[in-house]
Amino acid sequence: MIIVLKKEITASQKDKIESFIRSFDSSPSYWKNNGFDVIGLLEQDLSIWENDLKNMDGVEKVIPIKKEYKRVASELPPKIIKYKGVEIGKDTFNVIAGPCTVKSYEELKEIAISLKKKGIRLLRAGAYKLRTSPYSFQGLGEEGLKIIKRVCDETGMLSVSEIVSTEDVEIVSKYIDIVVVGTRNMYAYPLLKKIGKINNPVILKRGFSATLEEWLLAAEYLAESGNSNIILCERGIRTFERYTRNTLDISMIPAVKILSNLPIIIDPSHSTGRSEMVKSICFASMAAGADGLIIEAHYNPIESIVDSRQTIDMEILQEILDQKENLINLWDKK
Amino acid sequence: MIIVLKKEITASQKDKIESFIRSFDSSPSYWKNNGFDVIGLLEQDLSIWENDLKNMDGVEKVIPIKKEYKRVASELPPKIIKYKGVEIGKDTFNVIAGPCTVKSYEELKEIAISLKKKGIRLLRAGAYKLRTSPYSFQGLGEEGLKIIKRVCDETGMLSVSEIVSTEDVEIVSKYIDIVVVGTRNMYAYPLLKKIGKINNPVILKRGFSATLEEWLLAAEYLAESGNSNIILCERGIRTFERYTRNTLDISMIPAVKILSNLPIIIDPSHSTGRSEMVKSICFASMAAGADGLIIEAHYNPIESIVDSRQTIDMEILQEILDQKENLINLWDKK
Amino acid sequence: MIIVLKKEITASQKDKIESFIRSFDSSPSYWKNNGFDVIGLLEQDLSIWENDLKNMDGVEKVIPIKKEYKRVASELPPKIIKYKGVEIGKDTFNVIAGPCTVKSYEELKEIAISLKKKGIRLLRAGAYKLRTSPYSFQGLGEEGLKIIKRVCDETGMLSVSEIVSTEDVEIVSKYIDIVVVGTRNMYAYPLLKKIGKINNPVILKRGFSATLEEWLLAAEYLAESGNSNIILCERGIRTFERYTRNTLDISMIPAVKILSNLPIIIDPSHSTGRSEMVKSICFASMAAGADGLIIEAHYNPIESIVDSRQTIDMEILQEILDQKENLINLWDKK
Amino acid sequence: MIIVLKKEITASQKDKIESFIRSFDSSPSYWKNNGFDVIGLLEQDLSIWENDLKNMDGVEKVIPIKKEYKRVASELPPKIIKYKGVEIGKDTFNVIAGPCTVKSYEELKEIAISLKKKGIRLLRAGAYKLRTSPYSFQGLGEEGLKIIKRVCDETGMLSVSEIVSTEDVEIVSKYIDIVVVGTRNMYAYPLLKKIGKINNPVILKRGFSATLEEWLLAAEYLAESGNSNIILCERGIRTFERYTRNTLDISMIPAVKILSNLPIIIDPSHSTGRSEMVKSICFASMAAGADGLIIEAHYNPIESIVDSRQTIDMEILQEILDQKENLINLWDKK
Repeated sequence: MIIVLKKEITASQKDKIESFIRSFDSSPSYWKNNGFDVIGLLEQDLSIWENDLKNMDGVEKVIPIKKEYKRVASELPPKIIKYKGVEIGKDTFNVIAGPCTVKSYEELKEIAISLKKKGIRLLRAGAYKLRTSPYSFQGLGEEGLKIIKRVCDETGMLSVSEIVSTEDVEIVSKYIDIVVVGTRNMYAYPLLKKIGKINNPVILKRGFSATLEEWLLAAEYLAESGNSNIILCERGIRTFERYTRNTLDISMIPAVKILSNLPIIIDPSHSTGRSEMVKSICFASMAAGADGLIIEAHYNPIESIVDSRQTIDMEILQEILDQKENLINLWDKK
Repeated sequence: MIIVLKKEITASQKDKIESFIRSFDSSPSYWKNNGFDVIGLLEQDLSIWENDLKNMDGVEKVIPIKKEYKRVASELPPKIIKYKGVEIGKDTFNVIAGPCTVKSYEELKEIAISLKKKGIRLLRAGAYKLRTSPYSFQGLGEEGLKIIKRVCDETGMLSVSEIVSTEDVEIVSKYIDIVVVGTRNMYAYPLLKKIGKINNPVILKRGFSATLEEWLLAAEYLAESGNSNIILCERGIRTFERYTRNTLDISMIPAVKILSNLPIIIDPSHSTGRSEMVKSICFASMAAGADGLIIEAHYNPIESIVDSRQTIDMEILQEILDQKENLINLWDKK
Repeated sequence: MIIVLKKEITASQKDKIESFIRSFDSSPSYWKNNGFDVIGLLEQDLSIWENDLKNMDGVEKVIPIKKEYKRVASELPPKIIKYKGVEIGKDTFNVIAGPCTVKSYEELKEIAISLKKKGIRLLRAGAYKLRTSPYSFQGLGEEGLKIIKRVCDETGMLSVSEIVSTEDVEIVSKYIDIVVVGTRNMYAYPLLKKIGKINNPVILKRGFSATLEEWLLAAEYLAESGNSNIILCERGIRTFERYTRNTLDISMIPAVKILSNLPIIIDPSHSTGRSEMVKSICFASMAAGADGLIIEAHYNPIESIVDSRQTIDMEILQEILDQKENLINLWDKK
Repeated sequence: MIIVLKKEITASQKDKIESFIRSFDSSPSYWKNNGFDVIGLLEQDLSIWENDLKNMDGVEKVIPIKKEYKRVASELPPKIIKYKGVEIGKDTFNVIAGPCTVKSYEELKEIAISLKKKGIRLLRAGAYKLRTSPYSFQGLGEEGLKIIKRVCDETGMLSVSEIVSTEDVEIVSKYIDIVVVGTRNMYAYPLLKKIGKINNPVILKRGFSATLEEWLLAAEYLAESGNSNIILCERGIRTFERYTRNTLDISMIPAVKILSNLPIIIDPSHSTGRSEMVKSICFASMAAGADGLIIEAHYNPIESIVDSRQTIDMEILQEILDQKENLINLWDKK
């Protein structure tokens, strides 16, 4: 339940409201919404007090939230994430691009320069990888983080990279700007709780078999632990279809906007698993109203150490960017 | 395997080629492709004769098709369906709209007039329905077909309606212009074979659990039986996600274009099951390169006798149409 | 809603009840249950009249059915199918075996003789096949039906074979004892309605993506059309797992018994798609309480024209039968 | 690749073999198989040396393993886990039972005493829980571990409990005998690597959307990290069916035995989510050849703090145990 306070509220009215609500909810949240002060009562179902609250002096209106997730619900004002000069959320659109995995400083630098020239400010690259086989390349680890940081420092880009284990939260968040919770970790609640304690924006990928509700509840874990700078990322779900690597669930774009206040971005690379399909899916995502894209891109895709099959080259990336303004304009984004 | 003949081929060269190929394939197909005469050898794997054919006088080139589906493969020239002044396929985009089910002449007429005003030429409406429960409304049957025909005659629109059983092929194809094979009938090969004998264009909806390959092989059944005026329709697949009625597999748009020569349209209504998501999905489909849309629309959605939850009103339909030109232009369509 | 009548009911009491119920339900059904006369009111929700009916003279008790399927619900007495000396349902267990597809009289006869020796009375063999590719073998058709009938006549077995199209209902039901609705036809309601008009017992295979409720509603279509001699058959569902051909949903055995009064049998061949797994699955099915098995078996599996990969030989079949008595005894079957 | 050595091998022959293989594989494994000494070469594909090895003096035979998982493949001798007097694997069958979650010492003690009387030696109880909502009960944590240990010490039972995070590996393995990797953690490779360093047997639950191959590769992570005391546990997969909580994939019992040398047990509680179906599924699992069961049981199921809907009482548990000997005897287990 959210209580919107009147602009002309007096201090004593406010005190009265606060002492009333503190009697049954020990942790109200406070924020501003369109110039109004707002109090969020998120822990318990207080709907029986709705009328009492409505009738208190100084209360503009009361908004109930029936959903199990309270802190990321669409009843709250849209979440705008502002971080080191980048703004993610409503009215904006961000493209994140880069290789699946960092292999060397030279390679990443060259990719970063190409991206920067195209106006891209967010560089993705994996240092820790979860691989299905223990005998596959598992990433460069801290060495990789250092390369990513060096490249970002030199190019003025922000870095985007995955945390795969609770034990790596501290080190990754030291080197990386925007951390990623991968699809296999969406249900790793101890990891989410720990990431809830850091300040970096976090991209929460949907578990490849997670329902929308489970996904939003995973976001609630992050928010409840203290970090509400959450960007949802749809990256395809596991179905019977095998031509594509996963089945991109494009409907999550309007669905998330109906149910949640969080931004949602699309990963066309892991969802399709096929570079020749990425342009079409990027167009679709922008037109559907997504708030961003995270794309695997490389100046020479076949050199990618992991996932080269789904990595696009700089020419296709440019074709996608060429239509960006036109498409995001459909949803008044820029 | 397809044999493209030289423009300057002589009659005796052609005879020689034909008698050679008839020695191992009893049913070659003939058509024109960009001004060249073409012979299709579709029944058997004749790849061992590829070089012999290539070297025959009068042969321009030989194109092998390794896929199990031969008549709807992307190695063939894109299928353009022309029917009563409507053109469906590459370079074009068609919107089909109307109620899920025909209820009365008056209602359908009013809907048709609204659609016509918006420039829509294709009217969808169900007369025979497959309902999960035997106690649900099963459609008006022939009575419904007559209403649809009358409304289309009066408005100059073309009709689009489903055939649910082999026994109805004759009667439906008499009243209806473009027939539909519904999702539950995609595997009904005896029905496909029978529809293969009529001339009406046919919309082949993807079975809600059909793989892309099974879908294209179902199209091959139609083509092999004589009707290659096929329009594929993605309408969502069944997955674990339950917020949407089905999961729209938007990736089928680029995937179909990679593998097949057939046009593909999108059904945003059955896939999402939620009218509030239809606009976003229509934008996505147009941007991804679809060849058309089939939308449930009604001047007053809550009056829809079936599926009112997913039916959009005329205002939202107009918002979709307002962006059509801009979006289909991405793929050089008009 | 079911009304059980008192044994000592008088004619005038019965008249009174009947005229009362006919005022709101035009098609009551009548049957005997454990010596009591029973009236079934299946079309409409008459729960508001429950107390009135309970209090009428001559009424023993009233059993409401809230489920959407009324004629195959577990509130009704268990369905026992008796046909030409075979009894299928509670307290019994039947093994159906034979080749996927009939190829020749000689082959089928040899298989039938082997099965007969093992005490098996029900011979399965396909004459009409639904194949994913139009270029695959589609079955012998009526020629196949004649072979099956001849072999069954000569061996005294009952035949089990699939109907794939509404147009074949008449001819198949003439030659075949127990007809099968295959997995691809579970949603083919016009076909179900037509099979509802014949008297042969019918095996209704679960659609490979059908929910339990859809499956029971498909059975309701058969029952509502007049044929309640229905045997449900679980044959595996389509999931992401690809090691097995389908995923056998063994839980349907207890689930069907909780929700429905129909018998359920298991197809271990199509579900696993691997002959080496069939024995284990047959043991599991018998132990779980299934009412029967339908197994692809051949004296020499690699000779099977279709599905040889999942066909077991006579030795493995014998190993399964050797444990039958022990296992079905768990559920007081014989 | 596995090299089986001749019984009469000389020390110098052995030296020669070892120095040969050490030239291309730095980490051969050694074990005994049916009285023969065996060398495992697991890291690399050495099939090109197969003949050279076969022809060396002292080599009995060479067994190649083509699968991506090498240490848990069926080419190796069946894994028998022996721990504190309990033996799990081929020829044995173990029942693990207890409440979903430990609530209090008194409750757990009473359950343990009931189970002990029935001859059950393995007590399951959760102390750390992964819950979909951050507002649900998350388990008693270390307090719960202490209760479980006390109860097991007092009753002489072995404890079975889940580790949910890398940070808890040390503490859980101190209190608990057999640790569990839950379905949401099957892909948590950093966790698997850490559990690979402890000696406790580990139950590896299948991810609810994991393929068989991914599951076996997860087991390979454990084995490769040093812990091969692995028990696979099938607990149902996520499908479109919603009547059951998950879809139990019973075919995994024969499938695991074909592909792997690890034991497999079944969780009838989480798979069905319905206590009334547990008995049927336990019978099926035993008959199919499973190596054990892990069942949620409570003297009064409705008192269970979590998952009471799927918890059986002591009477049903007894009915299951009453048929155990008869059913596991099918596979020569005792």
